[in-house]
Parts: sequence; structure tokens; C-alpha cells
Amino acid sequence: MAAAHEDESELKRYRRIILLTDGFSTPFLAKTAISLLRYRQNDIVAVLDSTEAGRTSDSLFGAGGATPVVGTLHEVEADALFIGIAPPGGALPEHWRAIVLNALAGGIDVVSGLHDFLGDDSEFRRAADEHGCRLIDVRRNDERQTAQHEAFREGCLRIHTVGHDCSVGKMVTALEIQRVLADRGEDAQFVATGQTGIMIAGDGVPIDCVVGDFVNGAAETLVQRHEQHDILLIEGQGSISHPSFSAVTLGLLHGCAPDGLILCYEAGREMVKGLDEIPIPPLQTLVAAYESVATLRNPCRVIGIAMNGRKQSAEEAAVERERVSAELGLPACDVYRDGADVLADAVLALRGERR
Amino acid sequence: MAAAHEDESELKRYRRIILLTDGFSTPFLAKTAISLLRYRQNDIVAVLDSTEAGRTSDSLFGAGGATPVVGTLHEVEADALFIGIAPPGGALPEHWRAIVLNALAGGIDVVSGLHDFLGDDSEFRRAADEHGCRLIDVRRNDERQTAQHEAFREGCLRIHTVGHDCSVGKMVTALEIQRVLADRGEDAQFVATGQTGIMIAGDGVPIDCVVGDFVNGAAETLVQRHEQHDILLIEGQGSISHPSFSAVTLGLLHGCAPDGLILCYEAGREMVKGLDEIPIPPLQTLVAAYESVATLRNPCRVIGIAMNGRKQSAEEAAVERERVSAELGLPACDVYRDGADVLADAVLALRGERR
Repeated sequence: MAAAHEDESELKRYRRIILLTDGFSTPFLAKTAISLLRYRQNDIVAVLDSTEAGRTSDSLFGAGGATPVVGTLHEVEADALFIGIAPPGGALPEHWRAIVLNALAGGIDVVSGLHDFLGDDSEFRRAADEHGCRLIDVRRNDERQTAQHEAFREGCLRIHTVGHDCSVGKMVTALEIQRVLADRGEDAQFVATGQTGIMIAGDGVPIDCVVGDFVNGAAETLVQRHEQHDILLIEGQGSISHPSFSAVTLGLLHGCAPDGLILCYEAGREMVKGLDEIPIPPLQTLVAAYESVATLRNPCRVIGIAMNGRKQSAEEAAVERERVSAELGLPACDVYRDGADVLADAVLALRGERR
Repeated sequence: MAAAHEDESELKRYRRIILLTDGFSTPFLAKTAISLLRYRQNDIVAVLDSTEAGRTSDSLFGAGGATPVVGTLHEVEADALFIGIAPPGGALPEHWRAIVLNALAGGIDVVSGLHDFLGDDSEFRRAADEHGCRLIDVRRNDERQTAQHEAFREGCLRIHTVGHDCSVGKMVTALEIQRVLADRGEDAQFVATGQTGIMIAGDGVPIDCVVGDFVNGAAETLVQRHEQHDILLIEGQGSISHPSFSAVTLGLLHGCAPDGLILCYEAGREMVKGLDEIPIPPLQTLVAAYESVATLRNPCRVIGIAMNGRKQSAEEAAVERERVSAELGLPACDVYRDGADVLADAVLALRGERR
């Protein structure tokens, strides 16, 4: 435990990060890299993709401004190499082995969020030891505490982003609401529960890698570590209706015992990502399901909708936003296009009610 | 994976088992031993508890008939020593180390369902290797598949026992319904998801020890291994409202995608076991919550109630049974006192509807 948290806060100390996406620089696969470019742009010195060298990260990903895309490690001076993709199957692409070894040989720490731990690979382990640098597996954890139904500090309002599916913007929505609230002078804190969020925030729990009996407890402990803040924006995972990942979703929901939920969805997505014949339930059904199970732990309701309109034109997105807001009777916005102000308003309104 | 399943089927081969409960022979702590005495009585040669030596298991636990309680290992000839308790904290009691080493030295295999694996203890490992016997940790698993929303065989009816709390009889209810259905000539199979169930059935998945992302997938794969049977009685875990264990409950529920649920509860229990200030929601609320989340995966409803009246007199239990049956509009029984016939009837009625 102590070691894991030290590793995490270590993550925030890196100021010259190279993001590795070599050969996999698509928006879906390179989600981690793109989010780091958006939320830690000042700490990123380059993207490494030999197939796209010479471009800027903005032209490649629409994020990160003029950050260069380089073809080899040693074109820039770096303190860490972050694995920037979530590869199909969860394992390191085979041709990346040489790149990782090369980084370690150059004294550069390597940070990974893969399910397969780099630190369990004896060749990597040896290289890191030999060159005195670190291999940090963000998903590694030894959470072993069961949740105790803790009463959190009364002045700590807990807001949790939940979704109708995976990869719809739960992390981004939490980060954007946090940013708006902080800009308004509120003591609001983002709480990370996935590998990318942890790389951004420097702290968190890789909740999908915790053993079943301890998922609720890991979430509860995580919230306890942050309850000195007035407002927590807790990143959600999966979906209560997801055939594969609902265990993680509910354990996290019960462990963090939110006061309010923000429901995130992608406009136009009707089938579960990766299970393309399985329909996603209607939003109305999901609102009812989330409120019903969340309230088993703590009185809770959905207070706003974060619409992800990435596949829509501005006009289509505006129509969709009005439609969904009217249908569910809740404030709605696309946090990228519209900013997160209406959701920040909903958070503060909920706090007003609770006082 | 293969190794784990081999170990499990191995469990059924033991015919001369000693159950170790030394110093912990209370009904709550010795749950594993008591269940093995009930469901594998013919394979048990003794209970080992030096503080109760000379008694019979029936006088000690109300189960297992004349099975002797012995004070030392070598009073009976045995092929396996099963750890018969779920100790507070999950670790092996310190004074048991000598007993386990003694068993291994005598060529007796040791089987454990503890969270702390005996096989990870170098002293035990060495002793097992030296004497050519086996250490089987029933909870060890390397489940790594995500659920795929499989369409199970149409003729396979899946019934899942769920609860209002832990330790209310979900395993026993599944076993008793299975027995009644088998006696009626049905091809009904008990499917184990916890350490005691696995020790009884010789197969199963220790679902609470699976990593979060793979809980749903482990349950799905388990059902696939048994879908050649006409009726599955799948053991439930925890409760959808349990502050600590709801992740496991929901992942299992979605992974096995039941057609019908049996709701198990203990009459008079109002607070969560182990979290004594936290009230358990009313049964009506739980029926609605279970049906709502289960149906996100597969159309499903609660078809019967298994009432555990262990703290009641026969008269009190009869009154309670009528009351709960009327309140919920569902058949109800105490499977120990009344047998499981009315629940078996409900299972067959559901199958009739589905045809």
C-alpha cells in the first residue's frame, strides 16, 4: 500500500515525459496519450511514433499543441516514458520491447497502465535494476481491506460520474467539472480510479484490478484519503448494465457512496462497445437503475447529463443536448463543446440542498 | 486454469477427510466444516478439535451423526485435512501451523479455502514437496477472461440464489433445491461459487477472489462449463445491498444471467452482519433492486423465498413463513424445516412458462 502511493505521487514529479504510441496512434487505442496531452500538456516533451514522426501532436491527435512527434527516443531529453495506449488484449506490443529496454538503458523511468505488469518481466526488471531507474505499473495494487460503510466527513460532497457504456467520457467529465469548480474558487478535487486518471492525478486506485471482495473497500479507502476536500469528482468505470464490467461499476459506486451522479453517454451509441450485437438500455432505464442501487448505500440521484457528441456536428449536438435534457428533466451539456458550467451549477445546487 | 480445475475435481476423490476446527468449533466460524458434514458426511472420518475431543460431530455441530471429534491427527487414517473454518481476518490461526506441518509430514494432503494461500508459505511448500503431498488452495484462481454476453444453451434454465446479507443460506438453498429436483428425476446441477461449495461439489469458481474486471467473465465461463444440464442452481454471494461485497454479487449475477432468483434471508436479522449499525433494506426493496439489475442482462424475476428460521421456534417460523409469503406474493419455506419442495415447484413452473 504505502509503496503504491509513493509510486503514484512520484508520477506527478515527471516534467519531461515521452508518450509511447508507436504504430498505434488512433484516437481509440491512444486514449491514454491523448488524455495526458490534454491534462498534463506542460509535462509532455514528445510523442514517440516512428510511423508519424515529424508531425505535431495536435495534427495527430487534436491535442497537445505543438508537442513534437518523434521517431526515436533520444531526439529529446526525457525523465519518463509513459505507455500511451490500451492495446487490444492488454499486453505490450512485441516490437515495443526494444523501445522500453532502450529507455531503461538511457536511465529513463517507464510507466505503464497495462494489465500485464512490466515489473513482472525479468528482462525489464534486470535492465531497470542495472541502470538505476524505475518501472512503475500503475495497475499494480494489493488492496485487501473490506469496506466498512464509513461515514465520510459531512462537509465532503461526493459526485460520481457514471456511464451508459465504457469510453464515453466519465474521466474527462469529472476533470472538466473539477476545473470549472476550481476556477470558481471551490475546493474541488478529481479522484482517479483508472490508469489514465492516475497518470494525470498522480494518485488513485486502479479499481478494475482489485480483487472482487475488496473493490468496495478500495473505493472507500480512496475517498477517505481525499475527504478533507469540499467536493470530490470521482471518476466512474464501466456501466451498471455492462455485461463484462458491472462488478467494478457497482463496487466503486457503493464504496464511494456518492451524493450525486452525472450520467455520461455518447450520442448515437446504441450497442455496447466491443459487444456489437448487445443493445445498451435506454437512458431512462439506466437513471432508474443507478439511483436504485446507489441509494441502497446512500441517498443519491442523477443531477446532470454529460453528452459526448464526438460523432456529431455542432448543430446535431445542440439538438441532441436539448432533446436529452427535456427527456430526462436534467441539465445536459457536451463538456468539450459547451464547457462544464451547467454541471458545475448542478453540483453547487445539490450542495445547497444538503446544507 | 486447467490446473485449478484439476485441483478441484481432485477434491472429490478424497474419501477419508479430517476437518480441522481446533479451538474454533462455533456454528458461525466453523461454517465450512458443518456444511461438509451435511453434504459429504460419508467422506469425513473425523473432526479435529483438541478442546472438544471425545464428542461426536452431531453433539458438537448438530451435523455429521456419529463422526468422532478427535484430539490429534493420527487417531484416524486420513487422505486429506480440510481447513474447516473461516477465521476472523482470513489468516490461519498461528497454533495451526504445527498441525498442518504434522499432516504434511504424515503424507496427508491439505485443502484450504482461506484468503491467505497456504501454497505461498515456504515452510508449508517445502514440507509438501518433501513428503510428496499436495497443498490445495481452493480460492486460488487466475481467471482473466472478460464476459462476452454469451447466449447459453436454450434448454438450460439458470436459477440463482441471492440474499439480503451474507451467511443466510444461499449455498444450502441451492443444494437443497438441487437435491429435490434430482430426486424427482430432473437433470439439475449445483454450481459452486464459494470455497465451501467448491469443497462440496469438487468444481466451481471462488468468485470473491477474482480480479474485478474478470468477475463477470469467471461466472459466465463457469456456467458454460455446466450448460449441458437442464437446470442449474447457482450459489449466490453477498448481497446487492451489501456495503462491502456488492461488486461480487452483481458481477456473479450478470455473469450467470439467471432466468429466476430465489431470495434468501434470515428471519429477524435487521442489521448487516459485521456492520452492526447498518440496517438491511426491506425485502420488498431488495426484490425490486435484484429484478431491476438482473433484467439489465437477462429477463429475470424472483420466484421464491428461502427463509432461514434458525433463531426461531417451529411456531414462530411457521408464522413468519406465511407472513413473508403473503407480503411478497411468492412461495416461501425454510429449507431445513420444510424441505425445498415449494421452491423446486417454483423452478419447474418457471421452466413451464419458458417453454
